[in-house]
Amino acid sequence: MPDSPLTPDARAMLAKPNPAVIATVRRDGQPVSAATWYLLRDDDRILVNMDEGRVRLKHLRNDPRVTLTAIDEASWYTHVTVIGRVVEMYDDPELVDIDALSRHYGGKPYPRRDRLRVSALIEIERVHGWGEQKNNDQA
Amino acid sequence: MPDSPLTPDARAMLAKPNPAVIATVRRDGQPVSAATWYLLRDDDRILVNMDEGRVRLKHLRNDPRVTLTAIDEASWYTHVTVIGRVVEMYDDPELVDIDALSRHYGGKPYPRRDRLRVSALIEIERVHGWGEQKNNDQA
Repeated sequence: MPDSPLTPDARAMLAKPNPAVIATVRRDGQPVSAATWYLLRDDDRILVNMDEGRVRLKHLRNDPRVTLTAIDEASWYTHVTVIGRVVEMYDDPELVDIDALSRHYGGKPYPRRDRLRVSALIEIERVHGWGEQKNNDQA
Repeated sequence: MPDSPLTPDARAMLAKPNPAVIATVRRDGQPVSAATWYLLRDDDRILVNMDEGRVRLKHLRNDPRVTLTAIDEASWYTHVTVIGRVVEMYDDPELVDIDALSRHYGGKPYPRRDRLRVSALIEIERVHGWGEQKNNDQA
């Protein structure tokens, strides 16, 4: 990953099943956030997965730019924000991706099997770290 | 608060010192998020407070629209998102607001006293709840 902006420390933190919030932008420019599961992949892209009815899918199809803040499960003061854009979206008919997320966070497959899920892959463009992940000189 | 979109349940949840993430929009339309302390005021506006050097201040002066997701401190599965805009910004030279936030989250005044802080008040326009705060029919 020579082009990834993730440091090894940021990668290690993001690899944990942390609480996280993703924000997208509505067509009128209003930002909208939501708690989300995420999974950092080996290629440093971030996987998220949504129910097919989620309004966020519409936002992403209109504007792929996203931001995601992960809060360290061990200490709220440490958090990492990635800024980037969704570079790929695809259906998850076999629930492979949502199962991977559900196992990552809770150790079990996703319980609900009757709804189509859609995956999105986020390419990271910038990273801001705070607390133990601090990577900037903002006070 | 006849005009507030907050239900009593959402108000009670938001009143707790929950981890939260705020997102603003950069001038070029890119959303940017960050973990934040927040305080729900008696008038149902939400107070946030930033170091004067924070880039988020620039975003807010350019576009006051924000979104904030609070994750229930007791259960990550329950979260509440408020969508709204900053209706007032003002300097906090005596650190009154940041002290109120610091006491709310940690029981102590804010330790750093040598930096100017700026407060912003968010007027809530919409509320989305999930988990125990679910207020919609999205799956």
